[in-house]
Amino acid sequence: MAPPAEPATLTDLTTPTLVVESAVFDANCAAIDAVLPGSALRPHVKAFKSTAIARRLAGDGHTAFCAATAREIEGLAAAGLGDDLLLANESLDVARLGVIADTAAITVAVDSDETLDAAVAGGVRAVLIDVDIGLPRCGCDPADAGRLAERARAAGLDVRGVMGYEGHLMMVADRGERIERVGAAAAVLLEAAGTVGGDVVSGGGTGTFDTNTWCTEIQAGSYCLMDTQYLQLDLPFELALTVLATVISVSPKGWIVVNAGLKAIGMDHGDPSWSHGKVLFCSDEHTTLVPDVLADWRVGDQVRLQPAHVDPTVAKHEQLWLVDGDTVADRWPVDLRGW
Amino acid sequence: MAPPAEPATLTDLTTPTLVVESAVFDANCAAIDAVLPGSALRPHVKAFKSTAIARRLAGDGHTAFCAATAREIEGLAAAGLGDDLLLANESLDVARLGVIADTAAITVAVDSDETLDAAVAGGVRAVLIDVDIGLPRCGCDPADAGRLAERARAAGLDVRGVMGYEGHLMMVADRGERIERVGAAAAVLLEAAGTVGGDVVSGGGTGTFDTNTWCTEIQAGSYCLMDTQYLQLDLPFELALTVLATVISVSPKGWIVVNAGLKAIGMDHGDPSWSHGKVLFCSDEHTTLVPDVLADWRVGDQVRLQPAHVDPTVAKHEQLWLVDGDTVADRWPVDLRGW
Repeated sequence: MAPPAEPATLTDLTTPTLVVESAVFDANCAAIDAVLPGSALRPHVKAFKSTAIARRLAGDGHTAFCAATAREIEGLAAAGLGDDLLLANESLDVARLGVIADTAAITVAVDSDETLDAAVAGGVRAVLIDVDIGLPRCGCDPADAGRLAERARAAGLDVRGVMGYEGHLMMVADRGERIERVGAAAAVLLEAAGTVGGDVVSGGGTGTFDTNTWCTEIQAGSYCLMDTQYLQLDLPFELALTVLATVISVSPKGWIVVNAGLKAIGMDHGDPSWSHGKVLFCSDEHTTLVPDVLADWRVGDQVRLQPAHVDPTVAKHEQLWLVDGDTVADRWPVDLRGW
Repeated sequence: MAPPAEPATLTDLTTPTLVVESAVFDANCAAIDAVLPGSALRPHVKAFKSTAIARRLAGDGHTAFCAATAREIEGLAAAGLGDDLLLANESLDVARLGVIADTAAITVAVDSDETLDAAVAGGVRAVLIDVDIGLPRCGCDPADAGRLAERARAAGLDVRGVMGYEGHLMMVADRGERIERVGAAAAVLLEAAGTVGGDVVSGGGTGTFDTNTWCTEIQAGSYCLMDTQYLQLDLPFELALTVLATVISVSPKGWIVVNAGLKAIGMDHGDPSWSHGKVLFCSDEHTTLVPDVLADWRVGDQVRLQPAHVDPTVAKHEQLWLVDGDTVADRWPVDLRGW
């Protein structure tokens, strides 16, 4: 049956779908606010891809956002959340951001002559110089950062500072080691910042939100919804997001099948987890589970699977449902998908 | 820059996006038609989630489709492709199919009293009895199939026959072993068919399209687009689908970064492949590649990544672009996503 326009309880929802425990979400937000108030946190919308969540975080004082795609920036601007938007990624497709530069304050990351030239040609007015601080991905040679900044200023751009993402250090388990290695990466970034100028030093993520004490702003996003990967660390965030699924088959051989599979769950960090048994495997639209107690489960029961990676999981869905136990409190459209 | 309304060449496309080589797609379709003409093939739309592709296959004589979700069935019916639609999956959410039963001929799979009762209550008129033939997923005990069929007929349903999916045998590398094991699984299904009645014996997939010679119809879908997983087998299908991405960063340390990551590529079967070097790792919106010849690559170049699993890859995108080399021939909306 199609879901009611305003579902009241979990059983009104068409499954598979995403549910967010309201109290856990609130606690996660409070926990990060205690460490990174206001502009110290630049929430990364790639983790939740929802302007409804962005608006909620803006209400908590985090009014500057970062994003990984032009589509995310466009959506935030269209939603009136364009006070300070950073495309924290290299792109040659930035003219589409230049055309909305009068309606939102947009900064893009650049790490090469080509991406810098694209920003200028596209009508973007502000940039950060993206610096390689150890993750084998984007970012210029730190020794080249000053030259790029000079070139950008000569082209009329506002060079606001630097960005560097220590993504390779997010999952360092030992806090002491994490602090030490993040510090070493930050030292590279700060030295580049000295040659670049500007007052922004942007970096970090959920895994280093309180150990990266060198950046002027932290680009964390996963913290509010969370996943089982980040749960392995000593972070003050709990799992707010689960994938709600329905039991569609029960086998006397000892397994049950639910209607959420690898099209509903991000699989790059591995299988989801389940608190009532083992996950046997995921197919496109199924997950086969081996319950601790098979007799507890009937066709029609709902289960909640815990995804290993929040970002790609959310990107597979059209909405998140904010819930308080069994009660549905709100619908948050996932309106920043695509490119 | 936003893409032109009618992009002419690959460089007009916003990346990341999906491209389908027209000649390869045609050859894949011809190869399956030679073995499974007309109703011998019931194309599984879960692999491509596009009514444009379904319409193309219907034009080749395959006018009966199967699907994994109610949304896929609804979309096919709305597109006028409702001659014979099979929800080849258990669902309790079938009343939404009952309400369109006057506009399309809909059959659903059932494997339990509960799913059967849901079909009756929901106004569905025809079912297949789904039988467990060895994959630990849905399907009733073969010994229970006759009882379910009797119960369905007593409730007024048209029991068209049986379905059984030998998903655990799709990747058996040795053809002789594959034939033998598929035959053993089919024997279970055929025995159940004898107790169920009806004239449909539905099963199979791309991996067993020509070795499952026992079913009256084969549920294959991946064959037309293909992926690197199925390429490992001795099948007459080539890779038509790739993920088009743009180089956004080149590091003197020996890698390049493209703007397609794990939000654009199904990761459950592992990393994508690249014909010009190695894939180092995928992030949300990036893949880091180590080219065979670094000097060959510049920021702005386009690359094509080969996904390991077609179904979840397509489900991440809004469209596929049919191309002939560098020329864009058509746009196929991925209009059957979601649930």
